[in-house]
Amino acid sequence: MENPSQKPDQIPSRAENFSEWYIETIRKSDLADYTVVKGCMVIKPYGFGLWENVRDALDKRIKDTGHENAYFPLLVPESLLLKEAEHVEGFAPECAWVTHGGGAELEERLAIRPTSEAIICSIYANWVKSYRDLPILINQWANVVRWEKRTRLFLRTSEFLWQEGHTVHRTDEEAQEEVLKMLEVYREFLETELAIPAIPGQKSDAEKFAGASKTYTVEALMQDGWALQAGTSHNLGQHFSKGFGIKFLDVDNTEKFAWQTSWGVSTRLIGGAVMTHGDDSGLRLPPRVAPVQVILIPIYKAGLESALNEKIAAIVADLKKRGVRAKADLRDNHRPGYKFSEWELKGVPLRIEIGPKDLEKGTVCIVRRDTREKAFIPEGTVAETVDRLLVEIQADMLKAARAFRDANTHRPGTWDEFKTTLEEKKGFLLCPWDGTAESESAIKDETKATLRCIPFDGGKAEPGDVDIRTGKPAVARALFARAY
Amino acid sequence: MENPSQKPDQIPSRAENFSEWYIETIRKSDLADYTVVKGCMVIKPYGFGLWENVRDALDKRIKDTGHENAYFPLLVPESLLLKEAEHVEGFAPECAWVTHGGGAELEERLAIRPTSEAIICSIYANWVKSYRDLPILINQWANVVRWEKRTRLFLRTSEFLWQEGHTVHRTDEEAQEEVLKMLEVYREFLETELAIPAIPGQKSDAEKFAGASKTYTVEALMQDGWALQAGTSHNLGQHFSKGFGIKFLDVDNTEKFAWQTSWGVSTRLIGGAVMTHGDDSGLRLPPRVAPVQVILIPIYKAGLESALNEKIAAIVADLKKRGVRAKADLRDNHRPGYKFSEWELKGVPLRIEIGPKDLEKGTVCIVRRDTREKAFIPEGTVAETVDRLLVEIQADMLKAARAFRDANTHRPGTWDEFKTTLEEKKGFLLCPWDGTAESESAIKDETKATLRCIPFDGGKAEPGDVDIRTGKPAVARALFARAY
Repeated sequence: MENPSQKPDQIPSRAENFSEWYIETIRKSDLADYTVVKGCMVIKPYGFGLWENVRDALDKRIKDTGHENAYFPLLVPESLLLKEAEHVEGFAPECAWVTHGGGAELEERLAIRPTSEAIICSIYANWVKSYRDLPILINQWANVVRWEKRTRLFLRTSEFLWQEGHTVHRTDEEAQEEVLKMLEVYREFLETELAIPAIPGQKSDAEKFAGASKTYTVEALMQDGWALQAGTSHNLGQHFSKGFGIKFLDVDNTEKFAWQTSWGVSTRLIGGAVMTHGDDSGLRLPPRVAPVQVILIPIYKAGLESALNEKIAAIVADLKKRGVRAKADLRDNHRPGYKFSEWELKGVPLRIEIGPKDLEKGTVCIVRRDTREKAFIPEGTVAETVDRLLVEIQADMLKAARAFRDANTHRPGTWDEFKTTLEEKKGFLLCPWDGTAESESAIKDETKATLRCIPFDGGKAEPGDVDIRTGKPAVARALFARAY
Repeated sequence: MENPSQKPDQIPSRAENFSEWYIETIRKSDLADYTVVKGCMVIKPYGFGLWENVRDALDKRIKDTGHENAYFPLLVPESLLLKEAEHVEGFAPECAWVTHGGGAELEERLAIRPTSEAIICSIYANWVKSYRDLPILINQWANVVRWEKRTRLFLRTSEFLWQEGHTVHRTDEEAQEEVLKMLEVYREFLETELAIPAIPGQKSDAEKFAGASKTYTVEALMQDGWALQAGTSHNLGQHFSKGFGIKFLDVDNTEKFAWQTSWGVSTRLIGGAVMTHGDDSGLRLPPRVAPVQVILIPIYKAGLESALNEKIAAIVADLKKRGVRAKADLRDNHRPGYKFSEWELKGVPLRIEIGPKDLEKGTVCIVRRDTREKAFIPEGTVAETVDRLLVEIQADMLKAARAFRDANTHRPGTWDEFKTTLEEKKGFLLCPWDGTAESESAIKDETKATLRCIPFDGGKAEPGDVDIRTGKPAVARALFARAY
């Protein structure tokens, strides 16, 4: 996994080729790679360490809002998928099918779950009998498979990891409250942990989840001006409860169909973090989720190797004791410059260099990955400086991402301006929309921009607003963008 | 999920029908249940909470011994499985095969991983070039599928959850050291966390993992006298590195095949904990992994409901602050007796009852699940008493399990005694063995007892030892039992 040459592999610049930059950054920073299995990736230890931090931060929030984890079967009998018409129409084309098991052909083929509504609803139907059994507030961390023709590491792979919440409620109001609560959990989590300022809003009918009555989303803007759907929360209404017979005896002693929600985020968030924060030197990871927060690198001089190693070991031990994810790079087959580039590529938020002069003076050199700002500080202040800088970097990265998003959110006044803006600047385009699928699909056909959402903030139509494409009276202001 | 009647569902006694007791205990305590998908279970929130504690405790040990987690593809092309002859022979018959994806038939069918050696080795072959790339110390938490005709919750299901470590080393010695290190991690983890005193040892050639050069195991004894293989650690030698071309340039500048190991434990550990500790009232969970360690139940009296609820809320909050997993059962549609039975069934280590008299006297009643011992203690000593009792219960459960195991480990002197002992007492039978597959399979055919392992402790043949079945000179003393 090491490179014996003097410099780490180079990555293309973002301006040159954003897509190549993205893939090569991920591969060369050891986050993930393609495999011989078409469309399936390996998440390497460095990438999985990042995912573990992301997962744990979200898992805590999911539990703090009253949910519990459970585990449901991977395989979904075809007959179950067929029970909700829109759902099967949406997912059957991307299913991977198991047709043989234990040396024999199966009587009924089984889909590898593309999402788990069907299998989970078939089980919930047995669990729910009385209003006292509600709400059911369950989440699952799992792998899912959706057969993809074109794949891209983290963003679109045939197998990916995710969490899927599946809840059941007594009333529509309760379900809707849950849907919005979890969307807000996602928004806050993205902002706090991944420094991604995502825009919450509602999807149009055309972009809804297959089988949902309403879908909400958090939409993020990548550095190439493309949007990324970072998480979704669905109000399933009674679509699945009617299909699967999830009924309960209510307080008033009448039998009713339950109200349901589902919500999920996936490993594509890792791709979102890469494209939100990375630069031409590679990753820049938000400190709160970075697998390594501080990398310590000795500048060796003959005779001083063990003194430097000892000093570094002491600092690493001290930082670790304080809960900082610190690591030393003591390899003797690479020069410091090589190591600097490699850990920059890996996006470690802080680098500490210690050389012979530092030993003498009792100092260290500390370098921020985000701004490359460099400072010499007394050895005794390392711990407090690291604590402070990690918080600062996290805040500054969010600030920078928010500034980029705001600078790239446009409000074209005419259809021509819409097209020019999209062509020349990309980004988010916030425009009045007449609420019809016709206008939405005309915009998509002519520009490849899709309706990302009607944002909670700024999505209301003002008096006199007319649809950017059709000129008809607008019912909302919608956010359009080309999207991953 | 509640039962409106006055008593929770009954379970059969262990003596009556151990197998039924096992299944009904798991279903009625809400650990898990069967689903419409043949052979696949749903792990319910209570069972998954238990698994999360087990998983986290083991994950910490896996990381503390220098391993990192990663994630490899679910799907394994058939051509990869074929690269190691014994491996494919062992696993192909139990594979589930994906033959269609994205609406089309696949050119090559894909197995859902029954274990990941094949897919991981195909990837390691690209990662390993120099001795500097070694060792690779990686673990994966994942789901696997092995098609099973007869299934039993947790013990044998077509899909199960597990961790699988896959390591690559420069030398045979290093690999062997890793294999034994991880076996010891399992043994210590089982003893410390699950209070299961497992016996470490080596498998015979007949019981080896398909493709391994040596397999080691930790074997536990269940209350019905049957053995359970609780975890295995394999020295894979160069079998896979030769099949998959995992080669490296060594220090001496020659190219060599690497040495590998793999090791795993699975959700069957939950079944092992149930069968080691449960009694006729249901589960008895070891405090260290119990999802709920203390359940608080009010004995309501008209007019005192809110005073009791407040008192209980204060104690729960205090216990939680100290890291104790405490929970209150304030349901108003069940009597205290019903709740007592239900939480006994769920195996919660400690129960605290608070009634009107306790309010008056400033006391609570605390009851151990393992011994049913009951004590009235001053309210102010609850926290310290809980801390102390949880440690005591954990230790006492291990002590009881070890005493049971020792009492049920027999040393028959003759073949007739072997058969009688197995028939009448079951348990472990430690006997001299001549080291041949012939003797081993004759024993199995005649008694259904399999060779569980040659234990590290007590597995050496003494002078004059002769095989229990053939009378030929013995090479070891082996542990036999009927096994799950």
